[in-house]
Amino acid sequence: METKGLQNFFWSVRSNRAFEAFVIVVIIASALLVGAKTYNISGNWRTVIYVLDWIITLIFLTEISVRFLGEKRKLDFFKQGWNIFDTLIVVASLVPIEDSDMALVGRLIRIFRVLRLISIIPEMRILMNALIKALPQLGYVLVLMFIIFYIYGAIGSMLFAEINPALWGDIARAMLTLFRVMTFEDWTDVMYETMVLYPLSWSYYLSFIFLSAFAFLNMVIGIVVNVLNEENDRVMLEEQGLTKVSLNEIHTQLNDIQSMLALAEAKRSNQE
Amino acid sequence: METKGLQNFFWSVRSNRAFEAFVIVVIIASALLVGAKTYNISGNWRTVIYVLDWIITLIFLTEISVRFLGEKRKLDFFKQGWNIFDTLIVVASLVPIEDSDMALVGRLIRIFRVLRLISIIPEMRILMNALIKALPQLGYVLVLMFIIFYIYGAIGSMLFAEINPALWGDIARAMLTLFRVMTFEDWTDVMYETMVLYPLSWSYYLSFIFLSAFAFLNMVIGIVVNVLNEENDRVMLEEQGLTKVSLNEIHTQLNDIQSMLALAEAKRSNQE
Amino acid sequence: METKGLQNFFWSVRSNRAFEAFVIVVIIASALLVGAKTYNISGNWRTVIYVLDWIITLIFLTEISVRFLGEKRKLDFFKQGWNIFDTLIVVASLVPIEDSDMALVGRLIRIFRVLRLISIIPEMRILMNALIKALPQLGYVLVLMFIIFYIYGAIGSMLFAEINPALWGDIARAMLTLFRVMTFEDWTDVMYETMVLYPLSWSYYLSFIFLSAFAFLNMVIGIVVNVLNEENDRVMLEEQGLTKVSLNEIHTQLNDIQSMLALAEAKRSNQE
Amino acid sequence: METKGLQNFFWSVRSNRAFEAFVIVVIIASALLVGAKTYNISGNWRTVIYVLDWIITLIFLTEISVRFLGEKRKLDFFKQGWNIFDTLIVVASLVPIEDSDMALVGRLIRIFRVLRLISIIPEMRILMNALIKALPQLGYVLVLMFIIFYIYGAIGSMLFAEINPALWGDIARAMLTLFRVMTFEDWTDVMYETMVLYPLSWSYYLSFIFLSAFAFLNMVIGIVVNVLNEENDRVMLEEQGLTKVSLNEIHTQLNDIQSMLALAEAKRSNQE
Repeated sequence: METKGLQNFFWSVRSNRAFEAFVIVVIIASALLVGAKTYNISGNWRTVIYVLDWIITLIFLTEISVRFLGEKRKLDFFKQGWNIFDTLIVVASLVPIEDSDMALVGRLIRIFRVLRLISIIPEMRILMNALIKALPQLGYVLVLMFIIFYIYGAIGSMLFAEINPALWGDIARAMLTLFRVMTFEDWTDVMYETMVLYPLSWSYYLSFIFLSAFAFLNMVIGIVVNVLNEENDRVMLEEQGLTKVSLNEIHTQLNDIQSMLALAEAKRSNQE
Repeated sequence: METKGLQNFFWSVRSNRAFEAFVIVVIIASALLVGAKTYNISGNWRTVIYVLDWIITLIFLTEISVRFLGEKRKLDFFKQGWNIFDTLIVVASLVPIEDSDMALVGRLIRIFRVLRLISIIPEMRILMNALIKALPQLGYVLVLMFIIFYIYGAIGSMLFAEINPALWGDIARAMLTLFRVMTFEDWTDVMYETMVLYPLSWSYYLSFIFLSAFAFLNMVIGIVVNVLNEENDRVMLEEQGLTKVSLNEIHTQLNDIQSMLALAEAKRSNQE
Repeated sequence: METKGLQNFFWSVRSNRAFEAFVIVVIIASALLVGAKTYNISGNWRTVIYVLDWIITLIFLTEISVRFLGEKRKLDFFKQGWNIFDTLIVVASLVPIEDSDMALVGRLIRIFRVLRLISIIPEMRILMNALIKALPQLGYVLVLMFIIFYIYGAIGSMLFAEINPALWGDIARAMLTLFRVMTFEDWTDVMYETMVLYPLSWSYYLSFIFLSAFAFLNMVIGIVVNVLNEENDRVMLEEQGLTKVSLNEIHTQLNDIQSMLALAEAKRSNQE
Repeated sequence: METKGLQNFFWSVRSNRAFEAFVIVVIIASALLVGAKTYNISGNWRTVIYVLDWIITLIFLTEISVRFLGEKRKLDFFKQGWNIFDTLIVVASLVPIEDSDMALVGRLIRIFRVLRLISIIPEMRILMNALIKALPQLGYVLVLMFIIFYIYGAIGSMLFAEINPALWGDIARAMLTLFRVMTFEDWTDVMYETMVLYPLSWSYYLSFIFLSAFAFLNMVIGIVVNVLNEENDRVMLEEQGLTKVSLNEIHTQLNDIQSMLALAEAKRSNQE
């Protein structure tokens, strides 16, 4: 009974708008601290930042605890991906920043605390979910892309390795060079260099640009436009408490009406 | 009664097509003056421009006054955003251009008078409204974008600050450098420089490019395509005096028909 | 009667598939001649090209005459834009190429004969018509774009003229430099130069890039996607001999059915 | 009877999931071999790679044979494009790699074996089919694009050939330079060079960029978005065992219902 009361108390804290706003402010403060550390700062300020860092870590720990204790069934807490994400980031940032071995890791983890802004603002979560939904469709495009890069990389390092080993020495370097070509970054310098020995090598670059830059970008755009449209339709209907009606359902309904009318007509004919 | 007559007179002036065309011509003249000032001009012409500038300012003042006095209820005038915008720009351009302290501000404000072309041409206003409608949706994308930039900026200035302080010295510089990478502007120079010390730093750039350039651009495109489509549908229906009908409304209508038919059938069965 | 027979004869020639194929071959030959002239060619070949050029001009003249004479009502010929376009290009290429004064003009006009490929292949004409349909919508976007360029150009030449007169000397140069910035072409070089004097000038470039490169490109894409979708729907329905049905028409139809049913029901009730 | 049993046996092997997974692993191994060859490798490893290469070739031969023998009617095997593609690649990779004359060809063919990943994974095949479906629509856009390039190339090599023969010497070089301009790669360097002699040549570049980069890219995007949308709709409906219903079919159906109701009403009126 006692614990039940406590759980209810934590639940009410957690649902409190002021509590949420406070957490957002702390996350932003945490982000500013991360930014401040990249400037040259004197010893005094460094101590201030050090203390503030620990205060923020403690607030985050408290917040996660409140949210965990406020959950009715404790296991449900870990069923939500964003909760696991928050817990991992907060727990990981207990790594002491002053330990010389772990300092870099500790600082990196503190940077990722900024990502908590996404998990705490509902609209950001919706946006992320939409992006994550587009990933499976993007997966096969990326595999196709990788195959194109691999084939062109193999050909490139086979033909051009001796012309410029820094760019075409092995398949890994060649693929990085191809990524550069795909972003149109000084790609003509790369091309003019190989055209001295292979005057027809422009066809290698042009075909690659067509396959990668154009085909790829467009497919990505196509998929994203698609997913966003569906997402928007779904959200709009949900807000009105409706589910999506397809033209096929309308078609079925009209068929029903037609047979109802035919039946009524048949009955009447019989009657007379 | 007297003021009522005056108001009607100003209203008719304001609705006059010739008056509107005249104002557009004056705005374009004002824009040409702004352009002319950027060329080296002799003293005589400078006086001409100076005089023309004041004439244009006076015409603008007169025009705004006419439009204000033509309004039936004076308060309604300031309820339209574009009216406030026009008034602000016209009043602000009374700042004297010859005052040495305020000269720069005065000249800047005169430049912004070109924007009045948008407020005076109805089609331009529609276009702007469509863009403004897309802003709230873009807002969260920009926040997400800023978070990505901030995290990569913090990591970049942490790791690469000593390699090239001009590019990675602090988080602000690092974020400007990342914007450069996002536009593919000589990004390989930036990358090759850090790859000397961190051979794996290509993964930092590639992941950033995928997250920012690709994901971001596509989301923006997705949203704009979306908003424009909806806007077009809405405008097209409005022109025909219709409101948008959804498949769900058709579905409800068909349900009504089905129950009407069922009821009629039930009645007839009872009757027999 | 005689002329009627001739007109029919020319009409049948004109509708002949072989005639059309022959004209396409001649246009391609004309394009190849244009290309050949850009290489260094010896005197003999130059004579050959010169002769071929006149043969092609004569064939084109004959073809246009056939098409004109085959028309039933001569005035209808000039009602089609593509016919006027063809006639202008063919007549203009009678300008002698050897005349030293007009040589450049003559050669330019011969280049434009390649455009006849568009007017002679029906699928290319459809594509062009779709593009032309998108133009009015693009018009206002271009005006908006020009306003943005003009304002930024005026500010740029006001602030940066003394830093680099070649790039920012007057509003025309400044606008060309801004177009360069919009295509991301070495834009950071331009920015770093002005940031020496105005450390905050990055905000000038970033805001411009956001307004122009992003907003503009996306609006263009939005409009084109839109127009192409509508065009596709229209063509698809036309092929099936149907006109587009909107949800609103379905809605009206259902309303009719509902009132028909209500009327029938009311009548029956009265009857009993 | 005997052969029938064998065919069934091969069919069951071919449909086996484990067999498919094994083939995918072998294809990936073959790809890794291709990549490994681009690194400097010692003699021992070269022998290992040589042996592995032959083992993979034998496995591929066996796999194709199994799939061919498992087919009920042998001719059906070659009716599927992907089967022909697989057979060609496998047979061609029998070309010995150690033969000095054919070594380059042999190595190139081995690279293309990576493409078998596309033919063996069903989802990749669907993606490729969607891309291939978009090709006919893209065809005319490419022809239009080529005409634009050809015309600008002819003008460019006519006017600028003497300024920079390496870039504008003949129509082929000029078109390669224009492709560079289209990708915004150092295009201002090209422009500034010709603006010394022809101060108005910026209009040549700007008009080309508008026509090519903008118009072209957008049309491609438009087409791809279109094709992907249609493909998605089709696949979604197919999964539910439905065919697409258009608004026009609904319209026809409603017309039927209306005439049914009118007929019933007319009959009733006659009856009374």
